[in-house]
Parts: sequence; C-alpha cells; structure tokens
Amino acid sequence: MTTYDPNNIFAKILRGEIPCEKVFEDEDTLAFMDVMPQAEGHVLVIPKLGARNIFDVPAGVLSTLILRVQKLARAVKAAMGADGLTVNQFNEPAGGQSVFHIHFHVIPRWDGVALRPHSGKMADPAVLKAYAEKIRAALAADS
Amino acid sequence: MTTYDPNNIFAKILRGEIPCEKVFEDEDTLAFMDVMPQAEGHVLVIPKLGARNIFDVPAGVLSTLILRVQKLARAVKAAMGADGLTVNQFNEPAGGQSVFHIHFHVIPRWDGVALRPHSGKMADPAVLKAYAEKIRAALAADS
Repeated sequence: MTTYDPNNIFAKILRGEIPCEKVFEDEDTLAFMDVMPQAEGHVLVIPKLGARNIFDVPAGVLSTLILRVQKLARAVKAAMGADGLTVNQFNEPAGGQSVFHIHFHVIPRWDGVALRPHSGKMADPAVLKAYAEKIRAALAADS
Repeated sequence: MTTYDPNNIFAKILRGEIPCEKVFEDEDTLAFMDVMPQAEGHVLVIPKLGARNIFDVPAGVLSTLILRVQKLARAVKAAMGADGLTVNQFNEPAGGQSVFHIHFHVIPRWDGVALRPHSGKMADPAVLKAYAEKIRAALAADS
C-alpha cells in the first residue's frame, strides 16, 4: 500500500495554499467544483482527514463522507436541473485516481449527454463560480 | 422522485427468487458478482433495505453500506491481484442506472486495461463462480 502524500493538490486546497470554488464545508468535509469537469456542475467531495483512497480511509471518516456525498448529490441535481447523477470514486492510477487524497466525484447527468473524459479540459472559472452559487443556494434551501 | 419498485431484479435476488453468485452477506448487506462485468471480478454491493438510489436511501443504510463497499474493495483487490479499483454508483437512467435498487459497483482495475461498457455481455457462470471463491477466501482471511 502506498502512503499518503501531504503535498497532493487537495491537501494544499485544504490548507488554503491553492484556491478552490467551494460549495460546502463542515468540520469533516470540503466540497468544491472540479476544475476539469466531466459534466457541467461536477463537484468533488473530500474529507479533511488525509487518506489516500478507499483502502486506507478510516471507517468513521468514510461513513461520514458518504452522507456528505448524498447531501451534495441532492443539491447538485436540484441546482443543475439534472435528470440523474453519477458518483465515481477512483483508487490508484489503474482505478483512474489522479489526486491521491480520497475523493468522490458527484456528476450531474442529462439524458443523451455522455460524460466527458476524466482529467480533461480546464473549465472557465466564471462558469464554475456561477454553478457553485446555484449549488450553495440549493444547499441553503435544503438545510 | 420516482418510487421504489419491489419487483426490480435485485429485490428478486434478495428474496431468493433469482439466483446470484454471492460473495458476502450480513444483516444489512448483500454482495454478489455482476453478471455483466465491466472487468474480471466486478462485484455489486447492495443494502437489504429497498431504496431506489442515493436520493432516497436512508442515511444510516448508506453509511453502513459504504463500509461494506470498503470491505469488498479490499477483498476484491487482494483476491484478483488488481492494481487499482473503481467504485461507481449510478442514479436514474441519465446517471447510468439500469436496476432501480441502490447499488455500488466495485470493479478491480489493471494498468492499461480499459473498463468494458456497463450492462454489456453476460459472463460465463463458471468464471464468476471461480472469482467468487477467490473473493470469499480473501474476505475470510481478512476477518
């Protein structure tokens, strides 16, 4: 098992060393817009605790994290007016993982619209900001 | 929100009306081989409680379910000698969902091997049985 690298990009986001377009934060969790979205409104949900992936994340962290994924899933679907939603979680490079801090992809989906490739093109920050505002509003309406 | 249909194929598997190649069962959870695997050793993890998908599954059911997903992820990776693992969870047809009982896909991955399409070709039952035996052995070694 490979260990956790505290200099991965999500660890830097958690420490505030790199900016992100945040949509949700609590004691345990951060959720923000994916800068290389596979669909419009693609959000990442990560724990604040450093863990590499599903193989090493502590049980308590994982069970809390998935409830935040659910919360975001509902908000993202509502905010984006999506028909459905795909949740992906990649482990190790062979499994599709490119940042080695455990994360869940919450991706709104529309009938007839295929996913774009993972780790594809950078999105326009203004567009991400507009989606984040909608998602934050949906979260506020939900709570 | 569409409701839960108790005649979906996973509900029938849970009631024993349709067979499955089971790898794990406890009070809350059933895990079995996907008959249309996207990779060798592809397992599905479902709760016994009937819920359509991430939008309606009760929080307590979901937080237990993800811990079983983690348990299976470790066992599947070990049993199959995989390099990595992909966890997918699809919601509504637009999100890729084809059976309307919430489920997590636990898919072993190897470097350079692409996933096969979702809901593709039926696997040979003898092959599924052989993989299931390996995964059950890995679970037994882990507990």
